[in-house]
Amino acid sequence: MHEFDLIARIRARAALRGDVVLGIGDDCALLAPPAGMQLAVTMDTLNVGVHFPADTVPYDIGWKALAVNLSDLAAMGAQPAWCTLSLSLPGADAVFLDGFTDGFLTLAKQHDFALIGGDTTRGPLSISVTAHGLVAPGSALRRTGAQVGDDVWVSGTLGDAAGALRQWQQGDAMTPVLRERLDRPIPRVALGRALRGLAHACIDISDGLLADLAHICNSSGVGAQINVDALPASAALREAFDVATCRVLQASGGDDYELCFTAPPVQRDMLHALSQTLNLPLTHIGEIVTGTGVCCAGVDVAAAGYQHFA
Amino acid sequence: MHEFDLIARIRARAALRGDVVLGIGDDCALLAPPAGMQLAVTMDTLNVGVHFPADTVPYDIGWKALAVNLSDLAAMGAQPAWCTLSLSLPGADAVFLDGFTDGFLTLAKQHDFALIGGDTTRGPLSISVTAHGLVAPGSALRRTGAQVGDDVWVSGTLGDAAGALRQWQQGDAMTPVLRERLDRPIPRVALGRALRGLAHACIDISDGLLADLAHICNSSGVGAQINVDALPASAALREAFDVATCRVLQASGGDDYELCFTAPPVQRDMLHALSQTLNLPLTHIGEIVTGTGVCCAGVDVAAAGYQHFA
Repeated sequence: MHEFDLIARIRARAALRGDVVLGIGDDCALLAPPAGMQLAVTMDTLNVGVHFPADTVPYDIGWKALAVNLSDLAAMGAQPAWCTLSLSLPGADAVFLDGFTDGFLTLAKQHDFALIGGDTTRGPLSISVTAHGLVAPGSALRRTGAQVGDDVWVSGTLGDAAGALRQWQQGDAMTPVLRERLDRPIPRVALGRALRGLAHACIDISDGLLADLAHICNSSGVGAQINVDALPASAALREAFDVATCRVLQASGGDDYELCFTAPPVQRDMLHALSQTLNLPLTHIGEIVTGTGVCCAGVDVAAAGYQHFA
Repeated sequence: MHEFDLIARIRARAALRGDVVLGIGDDCALLAPPAGMQLAVTMDTLNVGVHFPADTVPYDIGWKALAVNLSDLAAMGAQPAWCTLSLSLPGADAVFLDGFTDGFLTLAKQHDFALIGGDTTRGPLSISVTAHGLVAPGSALRRTGAQVGDDVWVSGTLGDAAGALRQWQQGDAMTPVLRERLDRPIPRVALGRALRGLAHACIDISDGLLADLAHICNSSGVGAQINVDALPASAALREAFDVATCRVLQASGGDDYELCFTAPPVQRDMLHALSQTLNLPLTHIGEIVTGTGVCCAGVDVAAAGYQHFA
């Protein structure tokens, strides 16, 4: 396969939208953003061996490359619109490409997310995606709005992906439910959009709860007090690890792609109702307090948060 | 340096614009596109050893990574607005990062192009950029508009970057003027914008004149007849190579980042005047004809056009 065959193969399967004037196939895509809306833009890259194990199936690589970007749109409360994809491949492998495209476009379709362009190049396996969402002026969820007295909440369960990664690093078999969380994260797009007007601040958990909540605290000029016993855990995580390890994974493991947000206590009923509507656990895990930093007794905070180049 | 220090180092130097509501530092950037304008979006990746020699200086890597994306905006006649940058680095190297950022932001500043977000990850050296431009509805230059009887034009000189690459591949010293064309291409942004309303079709030359002109022909359902003796060459190229090699480099060498466009003969005077205004050679190199493909007697067309995965 040549480069142009690769592109044609992807292009043939990419769905469009009414606001895509020109999709894949020219020097640029052309888009007609709806009047009065702001654009939310994010870009994330996954490299083999860094962001996913080398034996990850192509479908899951495609899924995850898109999911981590949709998760950033979710954290802003934005409606997914368009994305571009740059794919660096060691060679032209039709089986890989078809599997990758399956995973990528299956998730895209769920969110009416149009693939409008990108690049294919030769190089070590690496995937960059730029995601564009739409949000009304003033309604985006930001990291800066947390207020003293806010409740701190998280969606879903924490630590599952990190649990799978821990098993992999130890040479153990990965628990299928945990590996699914690592390979096929679910971006909380509907939740993010529902939180506009309810939450004061929001972030998606990619580097670990404590590290990401610390971003909210730093940006908002506040501190946070977390109750480690309140952190939600899946049954699979509890089965696979002892209590102390569970806590570390929940508090500091990366790749959750859940949302962490703050909201005033007056919103508790609304948030419980939202949890029912979305069929997604929302758990009150602590409070925003005066001061700086995140306090979470019972976990070795120093170990928290994945850092590249650390 | 940690990942967040890397980001802070770039963020401190990134200039903003009035339409950037929120730049680097949250889950997404927020942008306020001007009412009634369309967005032109493109994404290109450069990998070490594939798109630039490993010994390229960091300044030039930063410059080129942005230039190839600006060149795609130029080819559509779009006004540069915002970009995102994903940088994969083997390690956190402040000297590399500062040089890279110098080159990237120096070129960005020339075009009032705001760096609004992105990603830094660990991995083999690779740079992905997504570029956003603005263009009025219906005015973008596309590949599809070439008409039989149009003149074919190119800007600047051809084959210089490919000449430098050829010298490097042969183990020869690179002629400085040619290497500058390889390492620091000039995106023809002002030309692209001036061609709106004059040109019928346009593309930037990244894969070589014949390959890229073939894209115009395929998209427009026409053929092209090129006069090889009319192809513009720099004095440096003529000095460094014999006539036959010059021709191959001009017709099929990649990395020119000049614009190739078609326009009706009635526009010749306007285009000569534009060439004067921009102080940039514009050369009439052939005609659009009925049929398919690009005919260029005197050059081995089969050798034309760089393809990844070929």
